[in-house]
Amino acid sequence: MARPQSAPDPSRRSAQSRTAILTAALELVADVGFGKLTIEKIAARAGVGKQTIYRWWPSKGAVVFDAFLAANENATGSLALPDTGDLGEDLRTLLRATALELADPAFNRTGRALAAEVLTDPELLREYRERLLDPLLEVTRDRLRAAREAGQLRADADLDLAVELLYGPLYYRWLHGLGPLDDRYADQVTQACLRALGSTGG
Amino acid sequence: MARPQSAPDPSRRSAQSRTAILTAALELVADVGFGKLTIEKIAARAGVGKQTIYRWWPSKGAVVFDAFLAANENATGSLALPDTGDLGEDLRTLLRATALELADPAFNRTGRALAAEVLTDPELLREYRERLLDPLLEVTRDRLRAAREAGQLRADADLDLAVELLYGPLYYRWLHGLGPLDDRYADQVTQACLRALGSTGG
Repeated sequence: MARPQSAPDPSRRSAQSRTAILTAALELVADVGFGKLTIEKIAARAGVGKQTIYRWWPSKGAVVFDAFLAANENATGSLALPDTGDLGEDLRTLLRATALELADPAFNRTGRALAAEVLTDPELLREYRERLLDPLLEVTRDRLRAAREAGQLRADADLDLAVELLYGPLYYRWLHGLGPLDDRYADQVTQACLRALGSTGG
Repeated sequence: MARPQSAPDPSRRSAQSRTAILTAALELVADVGFGKLTIEKIAARAGVGKQTIYRWWPSKGAVVFDAFLAANENATGSLALPDTGDLGEDLRTLLRATALELADPAFNRTGRALAAEVLTDPELLREYRERLLDPLLEVTRDRLRAAREAGQLRADADLDLAVELLYGPLYYRWLHGLGPLDDRYADQVTQACLRALGSTGG
């Protein structure tokens, strides 16, 4: 499936190929599942050569998580969290965006396929942690740490627990289809977390 | 693989067959995954005829969830929750038992295989909800409702949210391997939930 490369404008050509590869990877995870996904299939659908993919990514897991990351960045601007100084407001914004994404049927299909693979493949879990989850949890802890230092959270608030209290309920509800993932639910979880973490506001 | 049935003591024979079937189902989910599991394979490993399984269960999903339920009942006595009158004590007991189970390497292997299948198979999710998850969430809500009526929780505490606050963080930590699932963590989550739900004790 390799095609001869003859790019008159390499950087523009690269950006196009990169976008085509990431789009193809996301579509294929939903269509065939991560297990049956291959670099060959991604290359064929994206209309690029295998070697183009291997030049940029070491594994299919790396491609897929970069694809997810790119999709997330498009949806929310970036991984940076809002910091208006009002912790309650910022967490509501964060959890509303998270709920909206989980409730999106397109995300749901691909996200479930990927979550299932992550669950049973330790190497893929490692890549997922490294490329997607840990950076998200880190910026979330940073926002909470700033609030703790500003006296808006209990001085002894455990930030590892805090991020699990924030994201865990949404994820649990999403995985098991327990109820709506909407603004109201996001706000309920936010309020519960603020109470649990001893916020004076919220 | 069917073997002729010639049981001199039908009820004892039935109990032995049932145990063999449930054990075989759990082992096979871990070995081959739910997707490749068949009633034939369960029958072969359990040393019973296929028709014996079909007499008691309508589908492989039904067998597997009954197997999980039986394993859980052995570990914790029953699905009934402790009710000592002290909500904090009871929730700590519940979450410590949940954390212990999730941290068990044997459970981890089978549980992950099954969770992955549940994620991507809506029919299996329905069976999982009906046979395992909904009954667990229901008894948990019952315990919290009793506490709410006794004035130990806020009068407006939302019980659907409450069970997700209790189980969600443990599940999120387990799925992603974020940290230890031990008594200390169970107690931290319990305390956070009690604060979130406005308990006067805890």
